[in-house]
Amino acid sequence: MAPHRGIAAAIRVPAQEPTDAYRRGMTAPQFTRETSRRGEFVRQPNRFTDRITADGSSGWPVEPGRYRLVVSLACPWAHRSVIVRRLLGLEDALSLAVVDPIRDERGWRFTLDPGGRDPVLGIGFLADAYRASDPSYEGRVTVPAIIDIRTGKVATNDYPQITLDLSTQWRALHRPGAPDLYPERLREEIDAINADVFGDVNNGVYRCGFATTQEAYEQAYRALFDRLDALSERLANQRYLVGHSITEADIRLFTTLVRFDAVYHGHFKCNRHKLTEMPVLWAYARDVFQTPGFGETVDFDHIKRHYYRTHEQLNLSRIVPLGPDLSGWHTPHGREALGGSPFGADATPP
Amino acid sequence: MAPHRGIAAAIRVPAQEPTDAYRRGMTAPQFTRETSRRGEFVRQPNRFTDRITADGSSGWPVEPGRYRLVVSLACPWAHRSVIVRRLLGLEDALSLAVVDPIRDERGWRFTLDPGGRDPVLGIGFLADAYRASDPSYEGRVTVPAIIDIRTGKVATNDYPQITLDLSTQWRALHRPGAPDLYPERLREEIDAINADVFGDVNNGVYRCGFATTQEAYEQAYRALFDRLDALSERLANQRYLVGHSITEADIRLFTTLVRFDAVYHGHFKCNRHKLTEMPVLWAYARDVFQTPGFGETVDFDHIKRHYYRTHEQLNLSRIVPLGPDLSGWHTPHGREALGGSPFGADATPP
Repeated sequence: MAPHRGIAAAIRVPAQEPTDAYRRGMTAPQFTRETSRRGEFVRQPNRFTDRITADGSSGWPVEPGRYRLVVSLACPWAHRSVIVRRLLGLEDALSLAVVDPIRDERGWRFTLDPGGRDPVLGIGFLADAYRASDPSYEGRVTVPAIIDIRTGKVATNDYPQITLDLSTQWRALHRPGAPDLYPERLREEIDAINADVFGDVNNGVYRCGFATTQEAYEQAYRALFDRLDALSERLANQRYLVGHSITEADIRLFTTLVRFDAVYHGHFKCNRHKLTEMPVLWAYARDVFQTPGFGETVDFDHIKRHYYRTHEQLNLSRIVPLGPDLSGWHTPHGREALGGSPFGADATPP
Repeated sequence: MAPHRGIAAAIRVPAQEPTDAYRRGMTAPQFTRETSRRGEFVRQPNRFTDRITADGSSGWPVEPGRYRLVVSLACPWAHRSVIVRRLLGLEDALSLAVVDPIRDERGWRFTLDPGGRDPVLGIGFLADAYRASDPSYEGRVTVPAIIDIRTGKVATNDYPQITLDLSTQWRALHRPGAPDLYPERLREEIDAINADVFGDVNNGVYRCGFATTQEAYEQAYRALFDRLDALSERLANQRYLVGHSITEADIRLFTTLVRFDAVYHGHFKCNRHKLTEMPVLWAYARDVFQTPGFGETVDFDHIKRHYYRTHEQLNLSRIVPLGPDLSGWHTPHGREALGGSPFGADATPP
């Protein structure tokens, strides 16, 4: 009988080479480009970083009906823009195209639309718009992307800037009573927390899931849960991350938290605890989920099918788990007692 | 924007062919033999079903020091025999060999021992004993196996019979105060519950994890959680599965429950809830874990490394998750209030 080992002790596994089969899976073009020599996932930079501006100085002026926002409902980066568009009442000014949650080797597809083409852009693959803009582009084709409908070119796929610009540059087209999600006096604090949340949480879950060595995985896992612990502490006594109402910072944290148990916990091995086992963050996430503009933009079906059926190197069988039980998202959260209000005194729900 | 779908609604994915890469993984000899045409996992029968008997009528008489029990601490089927051997005080009569938790293409290995050989049997692989017994054997080499030390042959690898025989045929060698884990008056009830637990739970988690079609997986998942719900109901008001103290039935359920969150929840997609989210079963499992003879036989390091590093078709990267947090196993369970006692009035803890 082997001696009893302390079960709570950290289980260390020596860093070891991934298997040959895994290497083959990871040599698909998108992965060799985004994996460091130490096995870390290194997200590619965004290719189209032009901005759409109120004054048109960038060459892309804000104009109602001119652009089309292409998203996957599965994708956390795109989900941000869906939420912000809705909170600000930009639905009529900026139309939305939703891709099939399952990418194949040609990337994101408009296979949900009649004839397999986006009815406005007339293309079958988002890659068509990328190619129209840059015929030499060889990186991964990503959402969200904002397409200039007339030329079919990508104005921007720069997701961190897209939502900030929707808040600031598109202001003339906001609905009456739209909240200010990026108020000037709070920007420094929002930017700082966004940077931490991006590195350790938003992108951190991908760094866990796409690590190709034990060592790279463990480093990402520790950074993720250390950050979640710090966020739990911050949110224990305040309802939102910054100030007294919802800001861009909450939106960016939410789109990762809402996917946590459905995909990141198992598929990406982010499994110290489920979100449902982290009481402060779970109540916080439910509070945001139950706020108009959030829960109705969440599509767990797209989320689960995308992750489990697209990342073949993580799930060869492509079987989609039936769990987890998601009914808890609608249960009371009790966070009203902390004060604050979702949209502040001057704004209304969408 | 796609319409909001009820998030608690079951997410159905049409049954679909597994990928080519998965097929390749699943055409390793052990998997083609154990997968039905509908993608279901069908466990192979046990090859060596001789019994070791008190009267020696089987040709294998019970004798102290004659046999060696070969186990993996990772394996739930072998774990049963480790627990029973300890509860009955058979450590001196029946010695124990522990294999490396990571199987390679040659199967279970004695790589934890000096020189990579079991010091008593003198073999490097459990397959050597199988071959000594049946040179034509081509099935999967499994633990537990009881080896006749003198001849090096496998007396039995028939795990469901092994523990029952330790309880009944080996009685002359039990320690004073050993519990009766298979009392005659309860056998019918124990056998019935064991059959249900085997199909839906013990083997059910494997049927989830090794299914190669969505349909086969979903069927196994529903049977598993339906059974766990029924067991929760049964155990809500009684401390143990049958009678008022621990029996073979509890041992068989325990060895699956103790692995549930560490491996089955994520690796096998048994993810409706974690064990920690099923309050009755979680308290029951902690109660058993904290009973002498149980917790000290659990090796979470072997468990995690075995599953995540041996089933390459389920985890190509072979990265072992750092989670879950296992500290909860030592927390109070409150089950004493239900009455009963672990070993009954006439027996003592090991």
